[in-house]
Amino acid sequence: MGQVIATYQVYDKDGNFAKKAEGIALGLTVGTWTNLPDLEKEQLQKHKGQVLNIQELSEDDEINRYFGESRKKALIQVAYPSANFTIDFPAILTTVFGKLSLDGEIKLIDLDFSSDLLEHFSGPKFGIDGIREVLGVYDRPLLMSIFKSIIGRDLSCFGEQLRAQALGGVDLVKDDEILFDNPITPFDSRIIVAKEVLQKVEAETGKKTLYAVNLSGSTFELIEKAKRAVELGADALLFNVFAYSLDVLQALAEDPEIPIPILAHPAVSGALTSSALYGVHHALLLGKCLRYAGADLVLFPSPYGSVALKKETALGIANELTRPNPHIKQSFPVPSAGIHPGLVPLLIQDFGIDSVINAGGGVHGHPSGAVAGGKAFRQIIDGVLREVPIDHWVQEHEELSLALSLWGGR
Amino acid sequence: MGQVIATYQVYDKDGNFAKKAEGIALGLTVGTWTNLPDLEKEQLQKHKGQVLNIQELSEDDEINRYFGESRKKALIQVAYPSANFTIDFPAILTTVFGKLSLDGEIKLIDLDFSSDLLEHFSGPKFGIDGIREVLGVYDRPLLMSIFKSIIGRDLSCFGEQLRAQALGGVDLVKDDEILFDNPITPFDSRIIVAKEVLQKVEAETGKKTLYAVNLSGSTFELIEKAKRAVELGADALLFNVFAYSLDVLQALAEDPEIPIPILAHPAVSGALTSSALYGVHHALLLGKCLRYAGADLVLFPSPYGSVALKKETALGIANELTRPNPHIKQSFPVPSAGIHPGLVPLLIQDFGIDSVINAGGGVHGHPSGAVAGGKAFRQIIDGVLREVPIDHWVQEHEELSLALSLWGGR
Ligand SMILES: [Mg+2]
Ligand SMILES: [Mg+2]
Repeated sequence: MGQVIATYQVYDKDGNFAKKAEGIALGLTVGTWTNLPDLEKEQLQKHKGQVLNIQELSEDDEINRYFGESRKKALIQVAYPSANFTIDFPAILTTVFGKLSLDGEIKLIDLDFSSDLLEHFSGPKFGIDGIREVLGVYDRPLLMSIFKSIIGRDLSCFGEQLRAQALGGVDLVKDDEILFDNPITPFDSRIIVAKEVLQKVEAETGKKTLYAVNLSGSTFELIEKAKRAVELGADALLFNVFAYSLDVLQALAEDPEIPIPILAHPAVSGALTSSALYGVHHALLLGKCLRYAGADLVLFPSPYGSVALKKETALGIANELTRPNPHIKQSFPVPSAGIHPGLVPLLIQDFGIDSVINAGGGVHGHPSGAVAGGKAFRQIIDGVLREVPIDHWVQEHEELSLALSLWGGR
Repeated sequence: MGQVIATYQVYDKDGNFAKKAEGIALGLTVGTWTNLPDLEKEQLQKHKGQVLNIQELSEDDEINRYFGESRKKALIQVAYPSANFTIDFPAILTTVFGKLSLDGEIKLIDLDFSSDLLEHFSGPKFGIDGIREVLGVYDRPLLMSIFKSIIGRDLSCFGEQLRAQALGGVDLVKDDEILFDNPITPFDSRIIVAKEVLQKVEAETGKKTLYAVNLSGSTFELIEKAKRAVELGADALLFNVFAYSLDVLQALAEDPEIPIPILAHPAVSGALTSSALYGVHHALLLGKCLRYAGADLVLFPSPYGSVALKKETALGIANELTRPNPHIKQSFPVPSAGIHPGLVPLLIQDFGIDSVINAGGGVHGHPSGAVAGGKAFRQIIDGVLREVPIDHWVQEHEELSLALSLWGGR
């Protein structure tokens, strides 16, 4: 019988975790158990939640200081029979972390879906392999960049910025996540202009670049809008999934008439993941859930920039996006924010070649402009993969030399 | 020109809040400013975010203990021009708390919409007045109850539970939020059975009771499903809005072909609201946003039960749901969890008569059963409103007397 196993991190003054776990397992399924007649027990057995595991952890000094008293800490695991819910994110989240999310110091750490449930999640349409095929790039991390200060700028500025980024050798250019439908750079026009610009660059240089347009607006217009984007020749979609829901991402990803990759942006997700006590674990929300819901690429804060995650947290997300799963393709991890060429050795060391190096200021802020900015990134990626000494490498690569002088990392 | 003003609570070691606020106002709008040529400044002026206010607050002992160092605290207000976004929750949330939600200790406290933007939010279809009209109840708090241990039970059990609650004088009965589409109590059948049961009770007693069916499943099926519910004669919808999104609630509320009230359930919202440091303030998310998005009734944890909010927090939600607004109807506050008849004096004192008293165990756990449980609630509501001494009142009201003996409150 199918089930979802939820792992929770809980804090409790008295540390009576067995009672707490049993309360969850019953309270979120059949309600009561002990005093039920045998016949009812038989009928309800397949709906009953079950405590699978309770693991006491050592106490947290920070948390104890916060509460001004000692709090025991544990991980508890509860299995929820799939007989209780339909196999969609809203029903599953409501079951495992609906009312419970309001119930004191509890954080949802992980969800394990039994394999029969996994069939309901088709995951990324493209995944890492599929996107590599589209781009014809197999042997290095991809390079992504974003527009700079694009709000209020017109289509010619948009086109110029895009051209510069593509000429620099960037693989993917994404819309700013805060650029919405607007009269000066409308959705349709951005797609059309981007197509022209990028085809021209490809004709000139042979290099293919994808542009991800921000799919925004009212939920019930998204599917038609995405299909229109496809008809207009859009390469990829950027999607602020946490301003909508995992379920909406899944619907977009599963729609056969939207046969282009989807980049999931982490906007708003910090409200769910940042607390040590409450909410949802980064690796679950930005890793496993986005992958199951069908994100081909997932942006998240890198461990290096100003908006930073702890390294183990960022690696935890990347691990969920890429670890072997016979049912579901891998999603590209895109550790973002504060990335400049000097960080590339570290990025490749930490995230491997199956990741995307994503920069904004690190491309546009190059002393010789955005074309040089992209080139500097491509140069250092090549250098790192060839394992050449960077001191030598920069002598042959002027753009890289300038970048490292500015940002460090030489 | 339209704008949304966001209020954030921020903590900072150095307390350089002016710099932080300016970084937000520019970073989330035009990007840079100081070094722009005058012509560009002119073009971009209407897109530029603006710091409106910075208010330093006294430090928080708990928070300082948590970080093991002193952190300054402030409220900062930033105005975002509506030229930058489309007037929908996903675009607004992404603008004001997208990337920013990931940026350290910051909590979104409030959003103020300029009046031209409010026209884009029609709010509750019914609101407090509309629901009172449907029920013909004008002079007391409404009484709501929920099914007990309904998962795995069949339609006859469902019908019996509903009948008992209605006979007890309950105004609204809601589905359990964790009851989804299932073969033994399917969505359509629940609506049909509920209609039969409740019409029969009304014919017997003259008392009208509404049943709120849980609208669940894939996002892109919800509208059609809600319309089908209406055709089948559904009285009201229960909706786990935070497993979907505010935008989906708004679409349901605005659809003229779904002319029935919507109860918003707070499931999953604890992941967003519980932290003192991160996420979204209760009064904004469960209060203002749900009202603007069109919830006719809003459930939230009462200050009295086991799953409890601080009293000021619960009152803050209720205040946002009900305070005067010329554009948008009032939503019914439904402080829930742990409610028994002994708490009714307190509930009415705290939340007033324009609120809903909502009980599960406090109805079903009555020594004489759920009918008596409902009656006990109605009796104490009457007693409180008549301002009679409860000691006298219970002598004439057996159900109430039994309830107060069990739960206290005499
Ligand atoms: Mg951005
Ligand atoms: Mg419930």
